[in-house]
Amino acid sequence: MTMPTLLVLDADPLPRLGRLTGRVRVEHTDEAGLAGRLPSADVLLVWDFTSPAVREAWPGEGPRPRWVHTASAGVDHLLCPELAASDTVVTNARGVFDQPIAEYVAALVLAMAKDLPRTWELQRERTWLHREGQKVAGTRAVVVGSGPIGRAITATLKALGVTTALVGRAARTGVHGPQDLDRLLARADWVIAAAPLTERTRGMFDARRFGVMQPSARFVNVGRGQLVVAEALAEALAKRWIAGAALDVFEREPLPPDSPLWDAPGLIVSPHMSGDTVGWRDELGAQFVEMFERWASGRPLPNVVDKERGYVPGH
Amino acid sequence: MTMPTLLVLDADPLPRLGRLTGRVRVEHTDEAGLAGRLPSADVLLVWDFTSPAVREAWPGEGPRPRWVHTASAGVDHLLCPELAASDTVVTNARGVFDQPIAEYVAALVLAMAKDLPRTWELQRERTWLHREGQKVAGTRAVVVGSGPIGRAITATLKALGVTTALVGRAARTGVHGPQDLDRLLARADWVIAAAPLTERTRGMFDARRFGVMQPSARFVNVGRGQLVVAEALAEALAKRWIAGAALDVFEREPLPPDSPLWDAPGLIVSPHMSGDTVGWRDELGAQFVEMFERWASGRPLPNVVDKERGYVPGH
Repeated sequence: MTMPTLLVLDADPLPRLGRLTGRVRVEHTDEAGLAGRLPSADVLLVWDFTSPAVREAWPGEGPRPRWVHTASAGVDHLLCPELAASDTVVTNARGVFDQPIAEYVAALVLAMAKDLPRTWELQRERTWLHREGQKVAGTRAVVVGSGPIGRAITATLKALGVTTALVGRAARTGVHGPQDLDRLLARADWVIAAAPLTERTRGMFDARRFGVMQPSARFVNVGRGQLVVAEALAEALAKRWIAGAALDVFEREPLPPDSPLWDAPGLIVSPHMSGDTVGWRDELGAQFVEMFERWASGRPLPNVVDKERGYVPGH
Repeated sequence: MTMPTLLVLDADPLPRLGRLTGRVRVEHTDEAGLAGRLPSADVLLVWDFTSPAVREAWPGEGPRPRWVHTASAGVDHLLCPELAASDTVVTNARGVFDQPIAEYVAALVLAMAKDLPRTWELQRERTWLHREGQKVAGTRAVVVGSGPIGRAITATLKALGVTTALVGRAARTGVHGPQDLDRLLARADWVIAAAPLTERTRGMFDARRFGVMQPSARFVNVGRGQLVVAEALAEALAKRWIAGAALDVFEREPLPPDSPLWDAPGLIVSPHMSGDTVGWRDELGAQFVEMFERWASGRPLPNVVDKERGYVPGH
């Protein structure tokens, strides 16, 4: 085998690929250069996982990489019909984000239960105002998305004494199917969206679903912005259909400064950081290097995405 | 036995004592009336647990209640040498606050790890600024105070994957003695103060102790304000000896509007609410009613305070 070419769709800081020195020809590209370089690449590393450039560049003519890896859990930014129909293998960064995102969701749940956002506001005003918090133990959560991230969220909430229900694409042991969702939403204190973005999940949290929830319910999205109809959520908060929400992901990122979401009542806005803990980029780089070594030696790759479904199928 | 007199040192809202109707003569008093009414009371319920009035009224001459119950975990606000030397039994609300305070500490730890205070600040400014959070699992906490509150905090942090060390008045199975404290502080990511206020614990977190901690350490106080030398903490934060802190309790409560603590860098100020979750006053009232029924029927009381030590001795 001649030395394979690894094309990296760059983002700052660059991945550490030193361990692959001498075993691969590394080429770097930005979005504009991607289409021109795709034909000569054996492997594409989508390091800039916020870019839609792969989806746009792929449909052109000519040879294509045999393997595309994205340094993210979601693959919605790169899948297009032509890539899905091809025999190119797509893999993701399954595993790196599970525990950090679970902790982030726990942080949001506890912060909302203990009214911390209001505490900060009052501190700015030097105002002492005693309030009552809520107990988290004994409350009920519904986690939508039964992959490793949803499972980690469920485990962490359970450890805090929360009764949890996991909802996936189809019912199986320990997982509810979509037909149970409305019934579960109607009794939930916490609704956590952690599903991949697919044609089935796009816009699933709409006005009707927010209308099913309890007035005391709080909604958290750490999946993809497009799981939620943002206007419907803003309205549900304004009308107090639900008590609060936290969004870490948005249809447009960065969220534009003039978005009404920034000051929607009872909404916490964070900049897509739930899975990103100190050292995360190194972990993503190390994960890719290990996968590359498997690929180069002809061993089967882990984290292979089902390109029709749009995620890595699990148990 | 004639109908006993129960004197209640009032606070709004009053306790629900309906279940005791016909079995006790209930009298209510404010701080000013306490000294005059103490001689005729069999039982004193310190419902206003923020008041130092008992300590001030007790030393006077004459008969005194045989039993004093405080609707709080701490008893530092009522113990005086005369009460300690008397044969009056003192009980506290041990048990009601454990789980809520443990959750509150977890909320603060996770909020600091995930940089939520800064997220709120940025949201106000409509600014999208991605940052990296910290993983909580795998970090190390020292919890000072080995009573039920400290134990509940330890259990909750453990459930989040934190390695914990509990420090009490004396070493025993599962508990470190004071001689281990400095060594433990030097390696801790989180230092949680949850000890009762006694002559041994007053001012224990001083400039020297903050100097022992790691620059990355964060300090949380949910015990009593006087455990901490507030000026030393403010200085430790200003000089970045430690990375952050959260205080829920203060030497003077409410914290005066002109206190420099309100805007000390990296300090979260909350209004002594860590243990107070929806329904807490009802729980405190129900706990007292149950204890009163035991007392009236001559059965031994739970939660009896060691008046020399200043807390309910445990395992």
